[in-house]
Amino acid sequence: MTLRDQTPAEIDAAVAAAHAASNAWAASDAVARAALLRGLADALEGARERLVPLADRETSLGPARLNGELDRTAFQLRGFATRVEAGDAFAWIDDPAVAGAPPVGHPHLARVRMPLGPVAMFAASNFPFAFSVLGGDTASALAAGCPVVVKAHPGHPALSHAVAALARDVVAAQGVPTGVFGMVEGAGVEVGVHLVQHPDIAAVAFTGSFKGGAALQAVANARPRPIPFFGEQGSINPVVALPSALGARGAELAAMLAGSISLGCGQFCTSPGIVLLFDHPASDAFTDALARALGAQQPHAMLTPGMRRNFDAGVARLAATEGVRALLPAEAGAGPAPRPFLGQIDAPAFAAHPALHEEVFGPAALIVRAASVDEAVDALHAIGGSLTVTLWGAEDDRADTHRLVRAAMRTAGRVLFSGVPTGVAVTAAQQHGGPWPSSTRPESTSVGWAALDRFLRPVALQDAPAWLLAQQGRPC
Amino acid sequence: MTLRDQTPAEIDAAVAAAHAASNAWAASDAVARAALLRGLADALEGARERLVPLADRETSLGPARLNGELDRTAFQLRGFATRVEAGDAFAWIDDPAVAGAPPVGHPHLARVRMPLGPVAMFAASNFPFAFSVLGGDTASALAAGCPVVVKAHPGHPALSHAVAALARDVVAAQGVPTGVFGMVEGAGVEVGVHLVQHPDIAAVAFTGSFKGGAALQAVANARPRPIPFFGEQGSINPVVALPSALGARGAELAAMLAGSISLGCGQFCTSPGIVLLFDHPASDAFTDALARALGAQQPHAMLTPGMRRNFDAGVARLAATEGVRALLPAEAGAGPAPRPFLGQIDAPAFAAHPALHEEVFGPAALIVRAASVDEAVDALHAIGGSLTVTLWGAEDDRADTHRLVRAAMRTAGRVLFSGVPTGVAVTAAQQHGGPWPSSTRPESTSVGWAALDRFLRPVALQDAPAWLLAQQGRPC
Repeated sequence: MTLRDQTPAEIDAAVAAAHAASNAWAASDAVARAALLRGLADALEGARERLVPLADRETSLGPARLNGELDRTAFQLRGFATRVEAGDAFAWIDDPAVAGAPPVGHPHLARVRMPLGPVAMFAASNFPFAFSVLGGDTASALAAGCPVVVKAHPGHPALSHAVAALARDVVAAQGVPTGVFGMVEGAGVEVGVHLVQHPDIAAVAFTGSFKGGAALQAVANARPRPIPFFGEQGSINPVVALPSALGARGAELAAMLAGSISLGCGQFCTSPGIVLLFDHPASDAFTDALARALGAQQPHAMLTPGMRRNFDAGVARLAATEGVRALLPAEAGAGPAPRPFLGQIDAPAFAAHPALHEEVFGPAALIVRAASVDEAVDALHAIGGSLTVTLWGAEDDRADTHRLVRAAMRTAGRVLFSGVPTGVAVTAAQQHGGPWPSSTRPESTSVGWAALDRFLRPVALQDAPAWLLAQQGRPC
Repeated sequence: MTLRDQTPAEIDAAVAAAHAASNAWAASDAVARAALLRGLADALEGARERLVPLADRETSLGPARLNGELDRTAFQLRGFATRVEAGDAFAWIDDPAVAGAPPVGHPHLARVRMPLGPVAMFAASNFPFAFSVLGGDTASALAAGCPVVVKAHPGHPALSHAVAALARDVVAAQGVPTGVFGMVEGAGVEVGVHLVQHPDIAAVAFTGSFKGGAALQAVANARPRPIPFFGEQGSINPVVALPSALGARGAELAAMLAGSISLGCGQFCTSPGIVLLFDHPASDAFTDALARALGAQQPHAMLTPGMRRNFDAGVARLAATEGVRALLPAEAGAGPAPRPFLGQIDAPAFAAHPALHEEVFGPAALIVRAASVDEAVDALHAIGGSLTVTLWGAEDDRADTHRLVRAAMRTAGRVLFSGVPTGVAVTAAQQHGGPWPSSTRPESTSVGWAALDRFLRPVALQDAPAWLLAQQGRPC
């Protein structure tokens, strides 16, 4: 099955329905929103036996991963239901009037937050459940009181149709206005551009490539009335491994890292693409172990032939860059499943080559060798922005470690001190969004309960009448 | 005195100093930040006898207003000191680890916030203290842990120099790194563009015209690494007056509104530019009273001859628009002080003329007559974005009132139910920033304690070592 390009009139109809539902959904209470979110979670789980095989046929991700991802998606929908019930979308700041002249004296101010309106949501390729039709962007926008118009990803069209049908059924069964959930589709860029340009779309949530995100953000900025574009654009995710960590348990870390690099065929926005090592015998041993462990991995097929072509081109570009030495034999890989790539380069050469700072989407990583903390810090700053930086061996409270931690925090939205960056917990403290180019709004997150905040805008009500304050939630 | 255009090398030196101070100031504690903010407030007040006459010579705003504005500026600096001491910039979210498999199980996550880095701050023309060198943008950025490079406004150059000198003295006396505060100057656009393009500038705070803000935001977006642009761009500030309010006390409201329109010669971002009235005898009487009251006002001179020329051109444009009827005699006004303008138009004609939705900076207002709530709502939606909407007579819990309140909240960042929009209290619940074109980031505010949030970015620390957590503030 492939998606057909919908006509502008069909897209307009979907947005018109969302617009028509906007006021009613913005005025909905926590009970209604939580019921919808839980209903969607229940429906997903209820259709598991049908949806997982369908997803597997379209994505090659395998039933274990897909069942886990469906669990995560349902968990996320229910989690937002709980946050809405706890008042996250309705809490407001109360500033009682203070008598007297300004600046001390002031009128009564109530800072409430209102939903932005219809959100255009661009589903990702790589998570057919959790970052797709009913994924975190949809769940958080619905929780915030915004209708959603999903742009389906052409990588899993049948699954997208099945999940959208299920969502429409839940919406209808609960008596929620039809336009609260809609979906449009198209393989070309025109459908997405038309959606972002629509005057009744109030915000965009996007998960995808840097190229696609930057282009759509430019469209959002060029509107007569620009709108916020929350783009999560992929990332190179450096892993910085200090010799102290590698000396203690280098073999174990190499195996773990090889698994993370090839997990889901590297089709994770948090897939590690850079391994920053210091000149040290422990780094040499770790490099050998990582090459062995990664060489032993056989990733499954990539999602689409186009993504596979992009991966092969990216690997060829890495391998051809001056200073890059391949550490695994160059094998194209038979059939649709690629072979992992591992290369090595010195940190100054890495910092000097902007093309090396771009993500190669798939199971590819580059070892960057630094002769000093200065070189490592420069390499991180050259990357500029990443969803994550992982730092192994930073347990000691030392000046060198401080510098690396500072550089990591400056580069990333999440800094890990153990484990691997793949796997993004859905919690209150999560931050999935880093400086450009990894995301377009690094002050916001697309994973975790704070994702809801993206779709609310503060309004200060000055001397508001009693009836209006009574409609709000609880002051906090 | 006029500002000279600084050379690119001079601007680079100012940014280099800010960059050099960035890590140290980001690591500063609440005690150091509060001491600097209070020191700046004390220094401003200590130099009052010198600064207010200087400001008056450059701005014609008069000593009463300027003393009040200096009070507000000092209040604001001390207020941010208090907020920093209360932990606003240091609070973090703690998510203890939960054992078990995902999605329920997860590692320890701590969501801290880190300062963005050097902030370019574009001082406004119309508030030589409160939105200028040591105004709210500077105070909130310093409180957040960011160095500031001010772009002085050419409308009050001598005052800007004097306040900057005073700030440098305080910075030096407290042993704070010199680059925490810097200032650049230039009458042309080149200085500002060079500043926004500088790779070590991390964010921009701007108060000024829509044209200037939109142009600088485009520069920020076109950088190799785009940065957040917090622009507060002026606004048309509709006042919607229901017959019930006008019947009760129309004469009093007319006098208050005339004062608000001509206050500071209309050079307020919250100056009311639209008065939306319904067809009703009380509206007719109010129109007459407003015309009389506004005709009796004699505003002082505008800040610069250029602003006066723009005002005259804007009024000529309003008066020449089909459907607009002037309600005050057309007098150019002798010397640098303009005469107020008041015109009237029907709501459908207003909604259809995009040129009428643009702010005319100065003492000008347009009465928009609506035959129905539908027409009034359409007029507000046509405006699209405004810092404020004022709604007189919304005390009753009725369907019509609900619609007007909803339209007002959709249009503005602050909705007032009594009084006039000029005067923006500095409190926790304040919101000064509305949908485009009134601001570029309507989810943020440039006035009030939440202004600090603009300059912090969340970072999730996963399994952070004890020494790093000990450096953070208190979990919240």
